[in-house]
Amino acid sequence: MSEHEGHYGYLKRQDDYLKRLKRIEGQARGLQRMVEEEKYCIDILTQVAAMTSALQSFSMGLLEEHLSHCVVGAARAGDDEARVKIDEAMAAITRLVKS
Amino acid sequence: MSEHEGHYGYLKRQDDYLKRLKRIEGQARGLQRMVEEEKYCIDILTQVAAMTSALQSFSMGLLEEHLSHCVVGAARAGDDEARVKIDEAMAAITRLVKS
Amino acid sequence: MSEHEGHYGYLKRQDDYLKRLKRIEGQARGLQRMVEEEKYCIDILTQVAAMTSALQSFSMGLLEEHLSHCVVGAARAGDDEARVKIDEAMAAITRLVKS
Amino acid sequence: MSEHEGHYGYLKRQDDYLKRLKRIEGQARGLQRMVEEEKYCIDILTQVAAMTSALQSFSMGLLEEHLSHCVVGAARAGDDEARVKIDEAMAAITRLVKS
Repeated sequence: MSEHEGHYGYLKRQDDYLKRLKRIEGQARGLQRMVEEEKYCIDILTQVAAMTSALQSFSMGLLEEHLSHCVVGAARAGDDEARVKIDEAMAAITRLVKS
Repeated sequence: MSEHEGHYGYLKRQDDYLKRLKRIEGQARGLQRMVEEEKYCIDILTQVAAMTSALQSFSMGLLEEHLSHCVVGAARAGDDEARVKIDEAMAAITRLVKS
Repeated sequence: MSEHEGHYGYLKRQDDYLKRLKRIEGQARGLQRMVEEEKYCIDILTQVAAMTSALQSFSMGLLEEHLSHCVVGAARAGDDEARVKIDEAMAAITRLVKS
Repeated sequence: MSEHEGHYGYLKRQDDYLKRLKRIEGQARGLQRMVEEEKYCIDILTQVAAMTSALQSFSMGLLEEHLSHCVVGAARAGDDEARVKIDEAMAAITRLVKS
């Protein structure tokens, strides 16, 4: 059992996350094949948009677990703990919104 | 020589594009390792943002070549050709802006 | 004094938020002037990007206060309260990331 | 008749663009009212997402006209003219994708 279990919410869904990332890795390989086979640029861009969406929904899942576990836990531990976790989460959300 | 050469601008930079996609594939594998090693969610999200940025700059490169070659070529071929290519490009740009 | 005070974190910074929104309203009027004066499309698009960034940083500020107050409060109130607030926050974040 | 007419495609739809921007200005005022009336943060964020979408579709419309007129015109004028317009358009698209 992981020493973090209970801490990091996503561990309960580790397999699901790995499966999604494997699929995203497959999309990256699919894009290489498209470039090698000289596919039409617009079709490649469509695949990039699909891959970006998959990454986004992976990160939304992870963020949701983070809020549900780490942030809720910190909120219960005290104001300072909550402050640190929320600043961290906001920095991550801002990076995702901007990226 | 590709039958499309001259058509698809990105073919001149095929190697550069493949290299970038290989790096993006590596980032997808790096994310799997982070999930397996139970890294902290926020650190994983930082890597997702980096990977999304890499994908975005790949697609901006591809779009630029598409406009420079396919769209410019179509503009010179006639109004109807231009119309088709611009509609297609706008649909792709909208997907990228939304994704 | 508002009946919500203490609840909605952003109320402490209501004036700051109103000032930002006034500025954003001014940007919307500036864009109308640019269209009326037939400014160059690219210059208009630059202003749209600036206005979108201002809106984004307004929403990041609001979200931060929401997490710090409403979500932390809910986390302390109980698991069900936390669940409801986090689902709501995730739906809002997803809309912001997608928009 | 504007001296730019024929150049800037959006002038044909100037009224439509002004109407959209007026609506966006109204959304900015609506947000101020929500903050003044101390509405719930999540409801405000929903309105911000709607306003961001309206801005985005305004900019997609403008970009489409820009490509159809300025970029097509430049493509026909010569390679250097096309280069300048495409670099400019790509910088604008990148700002929109990032914002």
